[in-house]
Formats: sequence, structure tokens, C-alpha cells
Amino acid sequence: MADAPPTDEGWFVLHDFHTVDWDAWRDAPERDREAALNDAEAFLEHRESLARADEGDSAVFSITGHKADLMFVHFRETLDELDRIERSFEQTALAEYTEQSHSYVSVVEISGYTVPEYFEDPDSVDAGVKQYLEGKLTPEIPDDTYVSFYPMSKRRQPEQNWYDLPLEERAEMMEVHGDLGKEYAGKVSQVIASSVGLDDMEWGVTLFADDLTDIKDIVYEMRFDEVSAKYGAFGDFFVGRRFPPSDLPAFMAG
Amino acid sequence: MADAPPTDEGWFVLHDFHTVDWDAWRDAPERDREAALNDAEAFLEHRESLARADEGDSAVFSITGHKADLMFVHFRETLDELDRIERSFEQTALAEYTEQSHSYVSVVEISGYTVPEYFEDPDSVDAGVKQYLEGKLTPEIPDDTYVSFYPMSKRRQPEQNWYDLPLEERAEMMEVHGDLGKEYAGKVSQVIASSVGLDDMEWGVTLFADDLTDIKDIVYEMRFDEVSAKYGAFGDFFVGRRFPPSDLPAFMAG
Amino acid sequence: MADAPPTDEGWFVLHDFHTVDWDAWRDAPERDREAALNDAEAFLEHRESLARADEGDSAVFSITGHKADLMFVHFRETLDELDRIERSFEQTALAEYTEQSHSYVSVVEISGYTVPEYFEDPDSVDAGVKQYLEGKLTPEIPDDTYVSFYPMSKRRQPEQNWYDLPLEERAEMMEVHGDLGKEYAGKVSQVIASSVGLDDMEWGVTLFADDLTDIKDIVYEMRFDEVSAKYGAFGDFFVGRRFPPSDLPAFMAG
Amino acid sequence: MADAPPTDEGWFVLHDFHTVDWDAWRDAPERDREAALNDAEAFLEHRESLARADEGDSAVFSITGHKADLMFVHFRETLDELDRIERSFEQTALAEYTEQSHSYVSVVEISGYTVPEYFEDPDSVDAGVKQYLEGKLTPEIPDDTYVSFYPMSKRRQPEQNWYDLPLEERAEMMEVHGDLGKEYAGKVSQVIASSVGLDDMEWGVTLFADDLTDIKDIVYEMRFDEVSAKYGAFGDFFVGRRFPPSDLPAFMAG
Amino acid sequence: MADAPPTDEGWFVLHDFHTVDWDAWRDAPERDREAALNDAEAFLEHRESLARADEGDSAVFSITGHKADLMFVHFRETLDELDRIERSFEQTALAEYTEQSHSYVSVVEISGYTVPEYFEDPDSVDAGVKQYLEGKLTPEIPDDTYVSFYPMSKRRQPEQNWYDLPLEERAEMMEVHGDLGKEYAGKVSQVIASSVGLDDMEWGVTLFADDLTDIKDIVYEMRFDEVSAKYGAFGDFFVGRRFPPSDLPAFMAG
Repeated sequence: MADAPPTDEGWFVLHDFHTVDWDAWRDAPERDREAALNDAEAFLEHRESLARADEGDSAVFSITGHKADLMFVHFRETLDELDRIERSFEQTALAEYTEQSHSYVSVVEISGYTVPEYFEDPDSVDAGVKQYLEGKLTPEIPDDTYVSFYPMSKRRQPEQNWYDLPLEERAEMMEVHGDLGKEYAGKVSQVIASSVGLDDMEWGVTLFADDLTDIKDIVYEMRFDEVSAKYGAFGDFFVGRRFPPSDLPAFMAG
Repeated sequence: MADAPPTDEGWFVLHDFHTVDWDAWRDAPERDREAALNDAEAFLEHRESLARADEGDSAVFSITGHKADLMFVHFRETLDELDRIERSFEQTALAEYTEQSHSYVSVVEISGYTVPEYFEDPDSVDAGVKQYLEGKLTPEIPDDTYVSFYPMSKRRQPEQNWYDLPLEERAEMMEVHGDLGKEYAGKVSQVIASSVGLDDMEWGVTLFADDLTDIKDIVYEMRFDEVSAKYGAFGDFFVGRRFPPSDLPAFMAG
Repeated sequence: MADAPPTDEGWFVLHDFHTVDWDAWRDAPERDREAALNDAEAFLEHRESLARADEGDSAVFSITGHKADLMFVHFRETLDELDRIERSFEQTALAEYTEQSHSYVSVVEISGYTVPEYFEDPDSVDAGVKQYLEGKLTPEIPDDTYVSFYPMSKRRQPEQNWYDLPLEERAEMMEVHGDLGKEYAGKVSQVIASSVGLDDMEWGVTLFADDLTDIKDIVYEMRFDEVSAKYGAFGDFFVGRRFPPSDLPAFMAG
Repeated sequence: MADAPPTDEGWFVLHDFHTVDWDAWRDAPERDREAALNDAEAFLEHRESLARADEGDSAVFSITGHKADLMFVHFRETLDELDRIERSFEQTALAEYTEQSHSYVSVVEISGYTVPEYFEDPDSVDAGVKQYLEGKLTPEIPDDTYVSFYPMSKRRQPEQNWYDLPLEERAEMMEVHGDLGKEYAGKVSQVIASSVGLDDMEWGVTLFADDLTDIKDIVYEMRFDEVSAKYGAFGDFFVGRRFPPSDLPAFMAG
Repeated sequence: MADAPPTDEGWFVLHDFHTVDWDAWRDAPERDREAALNDAEAFLEHRESLARADEGDSAVFSITGHKADLMFVHFRETLDELDRIERSFEQTALAEYTEQSHSYVSVVEISGYTVPEYFEDPDSVDAGVKQYLEGKLTPEIPDDTYVSFYPMSKRRQPEQNWYDLPLEERAEMMEVHGDLGKEYAGKVSQVIASSVGLDDMEWGVTLFADDLTDIKDIVYEMRFDEVSAKYGAFGDFFVGRRFPPSDLPAFMAG
């Protein structure tokens, strides 16, 4: 039996997707629309400001294509809070004009593939590295323009069984993978969260960038990386654009 | 032909998932909401108290994400009772505001991989072990805060065919698997139920824990275990939080 | 090219699944409910009594879980009759409260794997065997309490290609398979029907038993059988309980 | 790179599947039903009579099971006509009581596997053969009682890669396949149409027979044929019964 | 780790699919229909004329079969514009009679497999080649009668792992592939756009031709090409016919 890498967990994450019922929205009286917008803006701003207290973060994105119109991303300390946030959106007047079309539950995770010493003896690690790693567990949602979210797993097929490889071999591949990621530093930032036991695939990946082709490039380049080429299994991709809660009226206006 | 392990069966299990029609709920008159809540609380408490008489158990969970809002778990002596419970919920006034979105039918099972002597000659087995095994067949639903449910099967592919292995080899792998589980004793408890011939995959697994990351950890660590790494096939995962029937009004309030 | 086994066909089979719209049912006036129940009971009894004339059989089952609430099973001499029965249910007043959620079309079949002599020269076969085989082509629906229905195919993958094996090898495996089935004689009875060219998988299997764990046991034990372990591909499983048409009011009452 | 066989194309084909909304139909006033039936009969007869002018063919079938109630099959010289026919059905009063549940787009095709000389030098071919081949490109829909439609592709997996085999090897296998088909001459007729680039699988196969077990037999026997056993990938199967437009009122009456 | 080829990106692409609610359309008052048609024509013509300014292109197609009735194809400089176009269609009066049934997001891409010198040193490349390549990044939608759209990926299985091959080997295969494409010059034109990180598969392919059998032929012939035969994975295919916005009333009339 191969060894699991040590891991550390941070915030729980909910990706919450909604489609807009545009027919109902077009037909709604102006007064009802305004009430719905006020209600939803208050919900969004309340979530964002709560987040400011370093107890999580929240943001809203416009998703392009039929899979969703809106994606809410929430980071919180417990699943209980995410569960409550999911339900409290349904109490807003805007919810009447939307349907929840998809979701993903995960928990931000760092693993000991590339920094085993942090897990064996955290005090032995340079303070800067320690702070960097701990910061990754409670990430802020970057202000970048574009987002791409997708779930992924590692394969367990004959000849392509990640879970059957020795830890060292996996650690080496993860290091190459990480090095490639570093080439995109300043262009693409990412949040990796485990969904093992929580949702249908094993991780949820959220990428942020100001130039959307950087997202395409990093995902494409990484696909040639052994860890993805041989062992990666990918789910559906959602692509979108961040907007501030105050732009919700413009978003709903089309 | 490889030998099937001996098995013993306990209670039948229904995992019954429902989504809430939040639009209808928001629009319902206060009086109708109250009637619905009373009706559903009575249904839930009645199920739980019936269960107290050692003839089963019932509990309700809040599920995070779009796959469901509520999960009812029922353990009963016969499928007939589960069939009746499923239909009797539909007679409550709350059912008008929910849709059944998923379900899973199984029967609690212990198998002779690790304790063949219990199956060959139960009297030869230590009374404590015997009581422990029999207790597993009629489990109480633990009071833990979090739950994770998923169905699974064993693969039958070339090079990864569980059903083609000698019984001894399977027994050895199951023992390693069990040892790993024991490391989580006191943190994660589980109910394993067979769904062979009853539902789409071969087993239903329900995990309970007070710390949700323990559930993530055990599932992740076990994935490196040969029995999962090579032979495990996993279905969808549902994650949630238990609440007492008396909290239903708070749940429905968002 | 491998040889197909000789086959003989009996009755055509329709498994017809319906979900109940419980909201509509709860809201319906008592008078409408009664009319619907009378209408449906008449439909069911008419189908059953027609069947008595040895021209088929019909029965109704309660299905546990979200995939369906009701399963009608009809055996008839022609597809035309099944097509008519399917549509005539939709003319009953109960149909207003149900949706057809699934179905399966097949034809009862015996194959020459284990009794080639019956197909080569039927007269050479013992009269009892002949009667037994012919009886299998026009089966009565047993009165057993529980039912499990599932479709299945044989795999055609490299290393696991049933259709590429010599007839003798397949016949040997089918004989072992049949012997295992005989151990359940008196406990589990089955109807095997081919759906090659008629529906999405290659066979429909319907199992009947008074003890539901016997169904679990036979399907589990057979999974270790080479013919299933290597070559079996299984679809969705539906489990339920038979009830007489006169119990329909009780069923609909929850 | 292996060589593609030469092909010749005939009529474009639309298989157009509809389910009936039986609740709406039952509730419709007699006058509306009559108008809908007249409208639809006129549509169907018009399509059939247009077809008589040797510019295509059209027919309607009752489909057994939940996947559809009605299947329209249209053969026409251009996709434009099929596109128009599909939309013009939606203008009939019957369309209000139906939903389009499925469809398949293809073009009748003959390939040079078994008669390469026809493609290399059509004049070298016997006039009868030539006429036979050309007739296959503009087929009439046979009057047989039963129909089975299914889409299929050829596999491209390691060890089972049709597109990687030399043309000669494929031609040999297709010849064996064709010989088997000839054994069913007079019992089963078929229309093979390519959907490469047009729909989700590579071919659409429509089989016609007066004895439905002949359809089961030919599909089953062919599955042992190397070309299917190793290289065939099959989609969903639809089975039904042809009826003349004038029987539409009887069909809708249940 | 194998090397990714260099790539260059042009316009972002949205394939936006809609089904028509024909029942609602038939029932709509003449005045409402006219308003809807005027609104939609204005939307379509506005998009097309905007496109004339060399800042993108837009076109509308009739799709045959149940997957969609209409496909809008939009090329624009940014995802933001596509996101806005998608939402602004929902503000037209026609949107009340349609549902978005599918979509695909991608970005037009050229890769360095066949012209590595253009990526290494663009100035070294012949001006005509340079202009040709740059033109491919900002394509006009051709006026051809027929269209076929499908997404595709490259496989990453054992023995068929595109991402594991040396760049030279991939470049050679892509050259053969390109040569085959050239044989269809003047008959079939294509737009290749990457959807890596943007949508569920890796590329979106849109083919245009005046003779639909040319589309079938090129896709079929290419399937024998090693790059497709061994490494191609294909999604759903959508086939249709282009029409000018001014034909929308005729289209909606059936």
C-alpha cells in the first residue's frame, strides 16, 4: 500500500451556480425587480463584508454559456456556514428568478508532496515559507477579471494508477507540476481544494487571471505534464468574469 | 470461479433525498408553512420514536449543494416498512414544497472476510466479538455532526477484477483496509450496506464524524489502500449535517 | 467468427415504470381520487384476468426509491398487445397522477447453451424437460413478495469479449452459472428475456423471492461466477414488492 | 494511415421521435382532438404522397416504451427539406400534444468494401448490380410490420481499432457480415445511413421485419460476427410498429 | 514531460444553441409574434453589422434535430462581449419563445505544429504565410449553406496518449492531417478554436460547406488518419443550415 501524503486543511468552499429565468425577469414589474436587486446586493455585500473580518471570503461571477449565469464562491471556516449561506440566498427576492443549476463542495488543502518538512516539523521551516503555506489555507479571492473552475481526480487504471505509485515518485511529479505553475506567477493564481469524501471528484480547482488566454495556456501546458497527461481526470469547466455586487443591476439588465 | 465470502444481513436502509422548492415556500402563507412544519416534525419525530423501540432508526440531515437539500436515512427490518415510510412522507403537507431528487436502497451487511470463524461456527467466537458483530447489523444512527454518503462497487476489469481474485487474497486486502479504519476509531464511524441486486452500485457507505476533515482524511487515506486504489469504483458523494426534527423550522427559514 | 447459440422465443415483455405526482394526488378531490382508483383497478384486474386465459400475464409492483413508484410487468404474445396496453393505461383517470419514468422491452428467451439437444432435435428430449423448457417461454408471474429487475449485456472488450469465445467455452460457463442458480431453487425464480435489437442492453432479468436477502445473495454469489465476473455488464436495478390490484387504494394512501 | 473506403450518398434521413402528453390529450375537448387528428393526418398523408413522386419517403411508427410514442422517418434529397418537415410538424395542431424527445440525422450510404469495382469503374459493373446499388441509395420505406432503429459507431480502442486496420482486412470482415445479412433476405430489410459529421454516432441503422424475432435474431447473430464483436459500439435501440396515417385516431385513442 | 506546441490566439467564440417553444409560438397573438420577430431581427442584424467593423462576426443557423432549433455563432475580441451578447439575446421578445439548450465557449487558435518558424521568428516567415495565419485568428463566418459543429479532445489513455508523445511525432501526424484537409480546399472550410480551461472538451471545430456530403466525407476520411483514429475523442455533433436574419420570419413560420 502506497502512503498518502500529509495534508493540512483550511477553509471550506462552496461553488454555487445559478441560472437566471430570464422570461420571468423580463415579465416582472419594475418595482419587483428593484426589490430583488436590492435584496441580492445586500446579500452579496453582507457576505463580502463578513468576509473582511478574515473569516472567509465571498464573490460573484458571470458565467458564460448555458451551464449557469451566476457563480457564487464562498470560503468559510465551517460547512455549517456554507450550508446556511446556500439557503439564505434562497430567501432573497432575487432567488425567485434563479434556479440552482450546479454546485461543488470542497475544503482548501495543502499537501506534503513538495514541502514534507512543514508537515514533519513545522518549526524547522523558514517563517516566510510557513506564512506562505498557512496563507494558502485561508485565501482571499483575487480581484482578477476572469475565473475558470473545474473538478478533477487522479486516475486509478492499470498503467495509470496514481494511488499505486510510491510517494517519492508522486512527489517528484508534483514538483515538476509546481515548477510549471511558478512560470505563471503574477499571471495566474489558483485555489486547490480537496473534495475527497465531499463531492463527486477529488479536487476543485479555481484559476484566476486578468488575461483569459493565460488560463488556457497554463491548463494546456500542464496537460503535457506527466501528472496530468497520465493521471489527470477532468470534469466540466466553467468560465466567467468577476463583477462587484454593485454591478448586479447592469448584469441583470442584459 | 472464486468463492463469495459468507455474509449476514441486518436492517434494510433507505437514503431518501429531497430538494426544497424555495420559491413555493417563500410564497406560501404563514399558516400553510406552519401546518407543513408541524406535519413534517410529527412525521420525523414519529419515525425517530418508533426507532427507539429497537426496530430501526431514522434521522434527517441538511445536504450542502445542488444535489439535495434534505436527506432522510431510515433503517428498518423490512423493505415493506421503508416503502411505506417513503410514501407516507409524501402525504405530509411539507411534501408539497419538496421533490424527491435521489435515493438509495441497501441492506446492512457484515461479511466473513475478516472473521470467517463467526460464519463457520458462531459459538466458537468470543461473546464480545459476537455482540459487536451483531450490533453492526442493527446500528443506531450516530449523533455526530457531519455525514457523507456514497455508493461504491468493486471493479471487474482486466488486471483489476476483484471478483476474479482468490478469497484469501481478498480477505488479506480487507484486513489491511479494516486496520486503517481502526485508526479512525472514535473519530469516524460507518455503516456499510449491500445494494447488490437492490440498487445501481454494490454497496452504500455512510460515514459519520464530528470533524468533517476526518471524513476527508479517511476516504483519502483509504484511496491509497490496494482494495480502493485498484478495485474501488465510486459513485456520487453527498455531504451534510445532522439536525434534530425540532430544528426543521430553522432549516426552512434559511 | 464464433457461433451464436440457438434460441427459442416466447412472450414479449414490457416493464413499465411510473412515478406518482403526489402533490396532484393530495390536492385532488376525493371524488376524483375514487374515480381514478376504480379506473386503474379495473385496468389492472382486466389485464390480470385476460392473462388467465394463458395468453400472457400482468402484475403491479411498488418500487422503492426515486426511480419509480409503480412497475407494471406485462407478458403478451405480441409487441402489438404491449404497445396497446402501454397506451391504454394512459387513458385511465389514474394516469393523470403519474408519469412514465422508465420502461424495458424484451422477449422471453431460452438458449441452447445447456440443452443443445432440444434445439437440434426436440423429439429426442425427455417429455418432462421439453415441457419445462416450453413452460419457461410462457411464464406466469410468481406470487413472491419481492421483485428485482435489471438489464444486462455481455462485454466485448479486449480480454473480456464474450462474443469472441468459442461456443463450447461459453456453454461450459453457462452450465456453471445454471448450477449456481439451481442452488436457489424454491427460493428465487427468474425470467430471462432478450432485448437484443429491442432495447438498450441485451437482456432483461426479473428475479422473484419471498425473502429479499435471497435476491441479494444470488446476485452477489453469481458475480464471482466467471460469466458475470469477466463478461457481465449491468444496468440500473429496480427493487420492489408485489401487491394485488385491490390494494391500490392503500398504496395510493401512502 | 489506413484508407477510407469509397462511398456514395443518397437521400438524407431524419428519424424524428415524439412523446405524447396524454394528460393534455385526455383533457382536450373532442373538437380540438378532431382538429388535431385531421391536421396531423393531412401532414402525414401529404408527406407520404410527396414521397410517391420518387423524391423521398415518409412513414410513421408507434414506439413501445418510455423513450417515445411516435417515430416519423423521412427520406429526402436535401437536409433543407428535412429541416422544413421537422418544423412544419410543429405547426400542426397535434404538435400541441407532443414533445420532440429524440432525433437522428444521417444520409443513406453505400460503401466500396464489398463492391470496389462499382466505385472504381461503374460501367464495368453488371447493370443489375448497378441498379441494385443505386436503388439502395433511394430506398422506399418497406411495409413490414415492425421496425428497430439504433445508431452505431466503430471502436477506436487499442486492440479494437477499426480505423487502424488495412482496407483489405476491413473489406473481408464486411463481406462475412454481408453474407450473414443475406441469410435473412426476405425476412429482414435494412437501411444503412452515415451520420459521420452529422450526428453523435457514425451510422444509423433501421431494420424492418414482419416477424419481430427475426430482428432480434439477426442483431444477436451479427454480434458474434468479428466486425460487431470486436469493433461495434451501439447506442440506444428504439422498437416499434408501422401504422398508416389513417390509423392515427385509433393510436391516439389508446 | 513532452513539450506543448506554441500557440497564438485570436477571437473568442460562443456557440449559443436555443430550442423554440413551438406551442407558445403557435398560441401567441400575431402582434406579439411580429414584435418578437422585429426584436430578434434587429438583434441579429445589429450583431452582424457590428461585426463588419472587423471586430468579430455573428451568424444564425437552423439546426436539424431535437438538440436545438437555432444556433448563434459569435466571434468577438473578448469574453466580456460574448457574455454580454448571450445575455442581451435574453432581453429580446423572441427569447420568451426559446430556451438555451446548449453552448460552447472557445478561442480561435493556431498552433506551431506545422509552422514552428512563425512562432520562433515571425519575421522570418513569408508575408503571405504570415497574413494567412493571422487571418485564421480573426476569421469571417463563411457564407456556405451548411454547418457542422462538434467539440473534441485528444485521448490520454495507455497506448493512445497524445500528451505523452514527443513534439516531433505529433507535428508529423498533424502535417498528414493538414494535408488531408487541403484536399478539401474550396469545398470545406473550418474554424478551430481551443476550449482548454474554457469548456468541457479541448477544442471546438466548426465546418462549413455548400455540399453537406463534403462535410461527411472529410470527417470520415480524417477518422482513418492516425491523429483521429488513435487519439481523437469526439463529443456531440450539431448540423444545420445558415440563413440571413431577414429569413427569421420564414424560419419561425415552420
